[in-house]
Amino acid sequence: MPSISTKGLHMPESPIRKLVPFAEKAYKQKKTVYHLNIGQPDIKSPQIAMDAVAMHSLEILAYTRSEGSEEYRAKIANYYKNKQINVEAKDIIVTTGGSEALLFAMGTLCDSGDEIIIPEPFYANYNGFATASGVNIVPVISKIEDNFALPPIAEFEKLITPKTKAILICNPGNPTGYLYSKEEIKTLCDIVKKHDLFLVADEVYREFTYDGLQHYSILQEEGMEDYGIIIDSVSKRYSMCGARIGCLVSKNPKVISTALKFAQARLSPPTFAQIASEAALSTPQSYFDNVIKEYSERRDTLVKHLQAIPGIKVGVPKGAFYCIVELPVKNSDDFAQWLLESFDLNGETIMVAPAAGFYSSPGVGLNQVRIAYVLKKESLVRAVEILKVALEQYKD
Amino acid sequence: MPSISTKGLHMPESPIRKLVPFAEKAYKQKKTVYHLNIGQPDIKSPQIAMDAVAMHSLEILAYTRSEGSEEYRAKIANYYKNKQINVEAKDIIVTTGGSEALLFAMGTLCDSGDEIIIPEPFYANYNGFATASGVNIVPVISKIEDNFALPPIAEFEKLITPKTKAILICNPGNPTGYLYSKEEIKTLCDIVKKHDLFLVADEVYREFTYDGLQHYSILQEEGMEDYGIIIDSVSKRYSMCGARIGCLVSKNPKVISTALKFAQARLSPPTFAQIASEAALSTPQSYFDNVIKEYSERRDTLVKHLQAIPGIKVGVPKGAFYCIVELPVKNSDDFAQWLLESFDLNGETIMVAPAAGFYSSPGVGLNQVRIAYVLKKESLVRAVEILKVALEQYKD
Ligand SMILES: Cc1ncc(COP(=O)(O)O)c(C=O)c1O
Ligand SMILES: Cc1ncc(COP(=O)(O)O)c(C=O)c1O
Repeated sequence: MPSISTKGLHMPESPIRKLVPFAEKAYKQKKTVYHLNIGQPDIKSPQIAMDAVAMHSLEILAYTRSEGSEEYRAKIANYYKNKQINVEAKDIIVTTGGSEALLFAMGTLCDSGDEIIIPEPFYANYNGFATASGVNIVPVISKIEDNFALPPIAEFEKLITPKTKAILICNPGNPTGYLYSKEEIKTLCDIVKKHDLFLVADEVYREFTYDGLQHYSILQEEGMEDYGIIIDSVSKRYSMCGARIGCLVSKNPKVISTALKFAQARLSPPTFAQIASEAALSTPQSYFDNVIKEYSERRDTLVKHLQAIPGIKVGVPKGAFYCIVELPVKNSDDFAQWLLESFDLNGETIMVAPAAGFYSSPGVGLNQVRIAYVLKKESLVRAVEILKVALEQYKD
Repeated sequence: MPSISTKGLHMPESPIRKLVPFAEKAYKQKKTVYHLNIGQPDIKSPQIAMDAVAMHSLEILAYTRSEGSEEYRAKIANYYKNKQINVEAKDIIVTTGGSEALLFAMGTLCDSGDEIIIPEPFYANYNGFATASGVNIVPVISKIEDNFALPPIAEFEKLITPKTKAILICNPGNPTGYLYSKEEIKTLCDIVKKHDLFLVADEVYREFTYDGLQHYSILQEEGMEDYGIIIDSVSKRYSMCGARIGCLVSKNPKVISTALKFAQARLSPPTFAQIASEAALSTPQSYFDNVIKEYSERRDTLVKHLQAIPGIKVGVPKGAFYCIVELPVKNSDDFAQWLLESFDLNGETIMVAPAAGFYSSPGVGLNQVRIAYVLKKESLVRAVEILKVALEQYKD
């Protein structure tokens, strides 16, 4: 039998993949499972976007331009201008989700064996895109004790080698919920300019900031034209994960013309989804106000109840809708499996994402889990209750 | 300024990219341009598919499973069974177009520096996916004199090295329109079994066969479970190029589980497009009968009129909707540019795809162009008239 590639063998599985059979077992036992493990919001997509697709009058579902339709890109540029991010349609390539934008960015910046420095814990699929692109991820550890603030410059500089092509950040962060301050962004911009690297910022959670804090984008910084690349997506912003629309944004014309060649090879982003995403740009501010209020209350509820459990440490999120929680257990993989397989509280249990998959350094984060607050408040309260009782019963 | 990757620099441009500014010039001069250069059908998408999307009642546009929705995959398996291709839902991964299926296949089979043998001329974007994946394409030349039939086994065997991982064919072929016979498929299956290689068959034009000929799939052959991978797409079948739905099919569980890891990293194929594609599977046979009749008549019209031009050689297509035409010119790049820039017949001209971009061997196909018959018969007749006059006037 011919053999699979080494790359294929090394492609990582999702951090919760191992748990799926145990979740299925829990369903079979008729347990109710509170899903704290997923990033699929329960918020309704904007009506205006859903209607635009329902009212389509296409006779031929044709390819669009590889870089996305002109109209849509012009409107995205406008959206950015309203956020003090000064870009034009020509600086934007519409992609099939933020996922494809990440893949295009890695292909555009890195050859096989090149390195990207990423503060960890980080979005687990960065590993997959890196493996697929032959890129080595070099992690710089951020700590729950610091709420996952940006590690000191010296930590980054220690890791820069001739193979380093970029620093990649996620802001606000999945899985940490950390929101970088303006000063931290400035620090990062200084490092990449000094060392002639790219700075890639995954800003797909831009809209989700709490406590009145403002998101500050890398492209709001002066002099980042050559260095900065934004990864963006409609998935979370409009609760339209299934659209598969994102974009790659850069003022560096070489980055755009190169990423465009990757885009041309795959022909076009999805057409219906572009219709939905273009319409979504007219979503009224009240939609976001409500969504942010909802997430912000969920976060408060979640954090308050978590902090009341003895022996737990919470990285308090300032954005996105995740947080990392340190548990009084040795191995959160085993604990997460036990929750599904061997535990219930009156027929109910919870599913969490073990955090080791969000770290690239081996052995780090073993006692942490990621919790997403994409459930209603009542469910979150109940889920934390279940966690509390579970921790009392669990023996590792 | 930090620099772009070597991979990015080497990413090929589309064969017609250089012509685009000249096409724009022609529009400015108010010329009518007959587009013989594109693969976007002018046929209407099935009403049933367009309606399914218009009638959607989604409130949350959510991710689907990474391998595509269960229902859709079960129905695709059924479609294949009706074509004597015996596969189950578990053998299928739904992808974002055939394009993504090709990318997943290359990542699953090949490491950087590995080789895939492809009969040339071939679909130009294979070059892009290969470059993005670090794969080297090794071409085996098929000839217009033979209508682009499969080259002799010996030609393949000469090219097999320890780095060879697969043979990739396109059947029916873009850009040749060639349809492999059952015997040719058997020959290919024998080669891959003998040399322990994968056989990847891009069958996105499966439905488009003429002269009463039947398409014969690699997975109709016995004993291909370990070796065969089908690349498929709804783009051409249902004239739904903008859906961005395709699939990768294999009975080899290692191929599927590995490709699934690539699929999981990018989360999900587009949701609206899966709704359209699932509904499209109920398209009545009469739709295809009409479409095939239409393409078949267009092909007859095109070939007859082309063959009446002195000094022209046509690779007569048996499938798909392209043909390669050899012209009495030295360089079809220059000729194609001249057609747009310096020629018109009563304000009309044509745009063709120079064929050199479909060859990977340097210097081959320089006097050939690809013509797509995705225009109405009257337009094709007129376009060939224009070509005839142009060839009389052109001096290289
Ligand atoms: C940080 C981050 N980046 C990118 C993505 C990719 O999302 P999509 O491809 O749906 O835009 C996600 C999805 O969860 C994410 O959390
Ligand atoms: C031979 C062949 N394979 C694959 C594709 C990719 O098409 P899609 O990604 O739209 O399925 C095309 C498109 O023209 C093609 O001609």
